[in-house]
Amino acid sequence: MNIPASEQLARIAEFQARIKAAGLDACLVHGNESDFANVRYLTEYWPTFEAAGVFVPAEGKPVLLIGPESENYAKGRSVIPDIVKMIEYRESAEPQYPGIDVANYKDVVELAMPGKKLNKLGLVGFAVMSLPVYFGLQRDLPETELVKADETLLPMRFVKSEAELACMRRAFQISELAIEAILNEMKVGMTEFQVIGIAQREIYKHGGEYEGHALYCFSGPRTNNAICRPINKVIQANEIIQLNIGARVGGYSSSVGLPVIFGKFSGLQKDLVEFGLKAHIKTMELMAAGRPAAAVVKDYEAWVKEQGYDKYMLYGPCHAIGMMEVEQPWMESVSNYNLQENMTFQVDTFFTGNDFGLRWENGVRICNGGVERLSEKFMKVIEL
Amino acid sequence: MNIPASEQLARIAEFQARIKAAGLDACLVHGNESDFANVRYLTEYWPTFEAAGVFVPAEGKPVLLIGPESENYAKGRSVIPDIVKMIEYRESAEPQYPGIDVANYKDVVELAMPGKKLNKLGLVGFAVMSLPVYFGLQRDLPETELVKADETLLPMRFVKSEAELACMRRAFQISELAIEAILNEMKVGMTEFQVIGIAQREIYKHGGEYEGHALYCFSGPRTNNAICRPINKVIQANEIIQLNIGARVGGYSSSVGLPVIFGKFSGLQKDLVEFGLKAHIKTMELMAAGRPAAAVVKDYEAWVKEQGYDKYMLYGPCHAIGMMEVEQPWMESVSNYNLQENMTFQVDTFFTGNDFGLRWENGVRICNGGVERLSEKFMKVIEL
Repeated sequence: MNIPASEQLARIAEFQARIKAAGLDACLVHGNESDFANVRYLTEYWPTFEAAGVFVPAEGKPVLLIGPESENYAKGRSVIPDIVKMIEYRESAEPQYPGIDVANYKDVVELAMPGKKLNKLGLVGFAVMSLPVYFGLQRDLPETELVKADETLLPMRFVKSEAELACMRRAFQISELAIEAILNEMKVGMTEFQVIGIAQREIYKHGGEYEGHALYCFSGPRTNNAICRPINKVIQANEIIQLNIGARVGGYSSSVGLPVIFGKFSGLQKDLVEFGLKAHIKTMELMAAGRPAAAVVKDYEAWVKEQGYDKYMLYGPCHAIGMMEVEQPWMESVSNYNLQENMTFQVDTFFTGNDFGLRWENGVRICNGGVERLSEKFMKVIEL
Repeated sequence: MNIPASEQLARIAEFQARIKAAGLDACLVHGNESDFANVRYLTEYWPTFEAAGVFVPAEGKPVLLIGPESENYAKGRSVIPDIVKMIEYRESAEPQYPGIDVANYKDVVELAMPGKKLNKLGLVGFAVMSLPVYFGLQRDLPETELVKADETLLPMRFVKSEAELACMRRAFQISELAIEAILNEMKVGMTEFQVIGIAQREIYKHGGEYEGHALYCFSGPRTNNAICRPINKVIQANEIIQLNIGARVGGYSSSVGLPVIFGKFSGLQKDLVEFGLKAHIKTMELMAAGRPAAAVVKDYEAWVKEQGYDKYMLYGPCHAIGMMEVEQPWMESVSNYNLQENMTFQVDTFFTGNDFGLRWENGVRICNGGVERLSEKFMKVIEL
């Protein structure tokens, strides 16, 4: 399951119009192994070991910029035919590649927009753009003004197409299959790593191309970590276990998260697990096309406070999901956009006690009058 | 299996001496989700979703710099106690985090080296350092000179300690177990993704913490890709299948690579598979403590030419392996260092025909008079 090349080429055409409208002559888009979304969105190319860029002129033809070792790979994968090798996108171990011919940014400009002048270049993927790329631009194009220009591309990714939604629905289904396998096979005495292994097996078995994010299985006090990685810890009875499992399909991510336990939830844990699920559903009820994102956050936070649980709320309630498990736009009290049909969000509900935390995570698509749940099978309290 | 904290703290002390010797007042080390090695080498901290930095003064105390969501995670994982949250290390989706308190680089300098002046700051991990970090430094420390300084830290990673070697030996063992499972379970009709799923399951089952690199299973003509990712393609009989499988243990990577086939290798394929293995062993025979790296490459290339196979050689023969599957130093004809005891290399032997390629990969440790093979179980021609 993949995005058709025609859709990616249409994205480039729209991007070119937006570059022109922003008063820029071109944009340089950056991606790396873990943060590849912008590059793949335009070209289908997904770097590994090396980084990548896409040079897109307002008028002219796009050029994919790759590291010296990826030529055959890129030719087989990219929807755009013009591909050049550049030292700026080499592996971080910085091989010198004696005898290999590489291009510079001046060559790229001449190929993409021959005879035109590049006065102002927008930088997209600014948050992950590397210093070799930036200094390479300064070296090769000393008279070009460089400006951060994420807004030329990123809003195009907010509203998903039918092809994108198909990938996401399948990714969420696979995540649910992986959770199901974990619930069937996980045992007291297994390590967190071994639980992740069950999920990885299922993701690939059902046609996932990769994890949608670094998978989560944490147990005990570490469940209060907002961000964490699994360790070699053995899972015990009567401790909270947090699972967040996400498959990737056709470049699109997903994640399904829930707390589980061998035994019974009790005391504050039981209370917060149950209230957390109510709060999770509350967020979904607050979302619909046309609603201001900031209003969802404020209404949610007011409701949690009203119920007396604000002191347990770590964060939430939502961020967009698509090619990255966390992508723009975030939903924060300072957000200044309205929800639109076919935006996709990860509802992400996190409550913590003193020495534990729990997190409900499921995806939704914004509809008129509400949301479509992209996953809901494990929106229930599970005791093993 | 992990590196003891005492070893990481000793690394920081040695790094501080090297910073001083280089005439720098401090270094800022950068890491991200996929390129985390330098940060983890000093602190054990391994970011996910967010990026991270380590500010290390020549005199004073090191400070771990994290994104706004990783505080609990970092406190539980870092061997250094001073940890500050900074917006420069946030997720690439750039949340604004209303109400969250973050530090700037001036605060970091005051915490790390109070009362001292920072005239010259070295940048380590330059190849992956992001623009928000660089512009944050320029904004907060306008009078500080910023210089690339990878050489202050990276050579410390060249020669491995006993603890590092223990992690690597285990990682290679797990990679061999994963290859073994693939050879037992892989069938004609499976997809490349499904083969990867078998390897992922085994890596975590045996205590691996993650993949050592994005795993390779390619079949048919795409085996001529030096860098590639698996796709949803179904594996056929009588086509070459390339496996490169690497587990990660305690932060240390590994990879075992070989070509296999359902049926019999024949013609040029058979010839290159067999010659490739001979060449792979030849490289190992050329390596020993004291030998110049460039001489290994030149002797290898001369030998391949003598045998008449230079036209099929894509690249090789070696790069260092450690926390990254590919790390410095590379072994190239322009290399200017000698092999030392306990350096670890990935012998990486790649030959291509017109419409296929094959790659033998195994790890070695440099010894006096030769090498220790970190993996050798699958250094044989396998037909299924």
